[in-house]
Amino acid sequence: MNAPAWNLRDRQRRERLTRAATALGPQLHGRHVATDAAVALLEAVLQPGDRVCLEGNNQKQADFLAQALTQVDAQRVHDLHMVQSVLALPEHLDVFETGIAKRLDFSFSGPQGGRLAKLVSSGGIEIGAIHTYLELFARYFIDLTPKVALVAAHAADRQGNLYTGPNTEDTPAIVEATAFSGGLVIAQVNEIVDVLPRIDIPADWVDFVIKAPRPNLVEPLFTRDPAQISEIQVLMAMMAIKGIYAEYGVQRLNHGIGFDTAAIELLLPTYGERLGLKGKICKHWALNPHPALIPAIEAGWVESIHSFGSELGMEDYIRARSDVFFTGADGSLRSNRAFCQAAGHYACDLFIGSTLQMDLQGNSSTATLGRITGFGGAPNMGADARGRRHASPPWLKAGSEARAGRPGAAGTPRGQKLVVQMVETFREHMQPAFVERLDAWTLQQQAGMALPPIMIYGEDVSHVLTEEGIANLLLCRTDEEREQAIRGVAGYTAVGLARDTRMVENLRDRGVIKRPADLGIDPRDATRNLLAARSMRDLVRASGGLYAPPKRFRNW
Amino acid sequence: MNAPAWNLRDRQRRERLTRAATALGPQLHGRHVATDAAVALLEAVLQPGDRVCLEGNNQKQADFLAQALTQVDAQRVHDLHMVQSVLALPEHLDVFETGIAKRLDFSFSGPQGGRLAKLVSSGGIEIGAIHTYLELFARYFIDLTPKVALVAAHAADRQGNLYTGPNTEDTPAIVEATAFSGGLVIAQVNEIVDVLPRIDIPADWVDFVIKAPRPNLVEPLFTRDPAQISEIQVLMAMMAIKGIYAEYGVQRLNHGIGFDTAAIELLLPTYGERLGLKGKICKHWALNPHPALIPAIEAGWVESIHSFGSELGMEDYIRARSDVFFTGADGSLRSNRAFCQAAGHYACDLFIGSTLQMDLQGNSSTATLGRITGFGGAPNMGADARGRRHASPPWLKAGSEARAGRPGAAGTPRGQKLVVQMVETFREHMQPAFVERLDAWTLQQQAGMALPPIMIYGEDVSHVLTEEGIANLLLCRTDEEREQAIRGVAGYTAVGLARDTRMVENLRDRGVIKRPADLGIDPRDATRNLLAARSMRDLVRASGGLYAPPKRFRNW
Repeated sequence: MNAPAWNLRDRQRRERLTRAATALGPQLHGRHVATDAAVALLEAVLQPGDRVCLEGNNQKQADFLAQALTQVDAQRVHDLHMVQSVLALPEHLDVFETGIAKRLDFSFSGPQGGRLAKLVSSGGIEIGAIHTYLELFARYFIDLTPKVALVAAHAADRQGNLYTGPNTEDTPAIVEATAFSGGLVIAQVNEIVDVLPRIDIPADWVDFVIKAPRPNLVEPLFTRDPAQISEIQVLMAMMAIKGIYAEYGVQRLNHGIGFDTAAIELLLPTYGERLGLKGKICKHWALNPHPALIPAIEAGWVESIHSFGSELGMEDYIRARSDVFFTGADGSLRSNRAFCQAAGHYACDLFIGSTLQMDLQGNSSTATLGRITGFGGAPNMGADARGRRHASPPWLKAGSEARAGRPGAAGTPRGQKLVVQMVETFREHMQPAFVERLDAWTLQQQAGMALPPIMIYGEDVSHVLTEEGIANLLLCRTDEEREQAIRGVAGYTAVGLARDTRMVENLRDRGVIKRPADLGIDPRDATRNLLAARSMRDLVRASGGLYAPPKRFRNW
Repeated sequence: MNAPAWNLRDRQRRERLTRAATALGPQLHGRHVATDAAVALLEAVLQPGDRVCLEGNNQKQADFLAQALTQVDAQRVHDLHMVQSVLALPEHLDVFETGIAKRLDFSFSGPQGGRLAKLVSSGGIEIGAIHTYLELFARYFIDLTPKVALVAAHAADRQGNLYTGPNTEDTPAIVEATAFSGGLVIAQVNEIVDVLPRIDIPADWVDFVIKAPRPNLVEPLFTRDPAQISEIQVLMAMMAIKGIYAEYGVQRLNHGIGFDTAAIELLLPTYGERLGLKGKICKHWALNPHPALIPAIEAGWVESIHSFGSELGMEDYIRARSDVFFTGADGSLRSNRAFCQAAGHYACDLFIGSTLQMDLQGNSSTATLGRITGFGGAPNMGADARGRRHASPPWLKAGSEARAGRPGAAGTPRGQKLVVQMVETFREHMQPAFVERLDAWTLQQQAGMALPPIMIYGEDVSHVLTEEGIANLLLCRTDEEREQAIRGVAGYTAVGLARDTRMVENLRDRGVIKRPADLGIDPRDATRNLLAARSMRDLVRASGGLYAPPKRFRNW
């Protein structure tokens, strides 16, 4: 028997680098590869079965490299195992149809969810698992380490240092896992400059840099036009602020994406101010730079925001408000999804988000039939952080509500995260948000998953907020109480109509359910006039002209 | 009213940089500060009340900067708020005695735990909170962002790029939070070189570099001399391997520090091999480079190890086994505590560690009276990761054991992490490991904490393993069962003697409690001969002479 080889990874790395040098010839200068040699580079360095991270972020896409990957010779490069946060582009699935890729581990598929489900059911793709972002990054260091990473940066210098700019997002986590495990890092950049505004990724960690013919795609996912916020959403936002944020004194929080939470952001400087809450709630955020938060920032509500990614059009505003955002010495945002998810998990007292369906146990899911969309960051942020040990008033209050009077291990004092699901009882097309059985169960069978794709488990939900009221699940002591508390805010859905009226009234007497009236909120006050900005133009104005919304949002 | 200023942070940063330039004069060249100007630098840049991260890691210490900080003029620099992972050096507490610092947020204090408790009770120190590592890092991005970071690196180049080498540990998290929030980063280095082996931290993120007069302190915390492993520990390790690792098929795991888990590591190539478990368990690790794992690595058990930090003496071995460890292109380890903690939380199926005390609810703590030691990484790794969504066989099996037959939200199918507490029933000086009441409760009162300092909550523990057997708490359905399961493995402690014998036998019949005999283990086979290495010298031999233990461990 030969002595075992222990530096195979390093040897293979050198072989791949040599193959690239040979294949590219004069199209390779130092770390720089000619734009039209992208496909040749990928064919030279990739091997069948390689684990590849193609940077598909929530916002930023390595779209040029994605396209190049679809063009490699499938005879030479096939059966790749793709590990990536987000499937956003058609190319992300094209590679499976051509056999270039075979297996997939991911977090979120959004717009490609329908096509993904079809590919899975036709056997064209093997799904390893669906993850929350930080969980997928974690596996990059354990059992899903990429052999090759295809990432996107804004600019590179001659040495190959990278400037990722405001949308740093996943790049540091991907590059660290790949570069320090004998893998290869290939970066597409929008431009090559002599001096970078700052260095986000050292050239040391990068093997190849290619200038893309077009700037990489970035999606403005967190922009919500205030004009589309309804008065029901204003009412729900009032309840969130008075019934939950003020009630618990929530200083550190994360907001999900959507109009429901945008309404909360826009009510802080008006309704929140009137309640005397400035400085008492909503000071520290784990949040993308939401334009809807501009009025609250301008009114002095916000001390700090750490961001997963950035938001198009917010660049100048961020630069001019650098006391609030995490920025580099160059003045532009440094986002970092890994750290921001850790912050959302461990340093925030409240997560509030929406869902499509919730069952009587409080389990909720955005999975719907015929689509495999994944979870994004919600499971990480919407889970009780059981490793947390530092105390804060809201966390202690939630924990003591959940544990008071319980015996045994469940009664040991412990804090708890506030996890709020904010849903109108009916969503689009009069689909009820409350159901006896989640579609996730059917989806589990269809896709052969080990568990139903539940985004947030009922065990982790503390409050359900609808236009009918707030159900505080922390105070429920039995499954029956929990079920009636949910039915009690489920409005005119079938689930809501089947409530036990007497039990619901009893829960209301005990403060488990609170109606707007119980909170001293008159629904007639819930008008759009309460919004600190009622249009995109108002947001621009509130920013002093610093916010420059993308074209599609310029509706004035 | 004046227009609010939004770039105060940046302005203050510039002012501090100017003050440093003025104070240091010719002692400042670019980013480089003369060694004897360290105190002057700190006096120039620090302001009363600043939040300061003094890099105290689990292993690596910015000891020169710690010393310099004790020497600043307390009239000028006082009431600092220290935010740091570990209090390891006397200087870390000296600054509180002199009034230079006032408030503390931390994770672990180890050897300084007794002095810390005294300082707290005399009012010489305000403790914000005790955290698990990742939780503290998370707060660096939310509400505990350092204004000044004092870090340690192995080397710097002329530009100020840093090479942190094998002990990168916390540095990237600290520097990122500080450098991108208008803070100042000061690094002590052992040497200044023309070309770094690799770049770990870009110069862009660093403001000042000082060559320390001595190399920074690094503690070999993870070295355990196999000669000190007892036969009881061998027996417990056999039970862990056969009764838990094999039973659940654990591939991805983290081991705590200590002789109990070192015994498991040393039994893999002998006992584990005999059971035919190679390739079936223990392939992927979140772990410092434990010397005790060398025989298993050499025998081909281990596919990958990602590390929080490094271990002194393992440098050459790691370099020669780069297929297994995360290393840079230079061949040396790249550790990263933030990513490794995320990996331990989200990508491992099992955490196994020891404790000093466990109560009848399964809550455990290493807190003892008169000492405030903190938690380190255990709460993060020893908590069920409720945000996790990818499935694996051990996680599904643990989850289904915990949930089978339960109604309501608690019965919704979900996986669960295996969290094993491995303790001898009596520890040193015949102190019982099982108690009716944790010292943590008294400590809570003494130190005025919001909650008792519980390291791992009973709700999160899946198995308790003692020399008497394994108690599987996942299978317990009532508080009473859980209590008897714990009593049933608590041996001759008062807690163990007070067991309900009939109920314990019933639990054994149901497989909730397993004795060695139930696992087919004959305690007479549990001899030190089973250890793949029985001395430090054996470990060196197993490594082919590549492992070079620190002097204090060279006992042959």
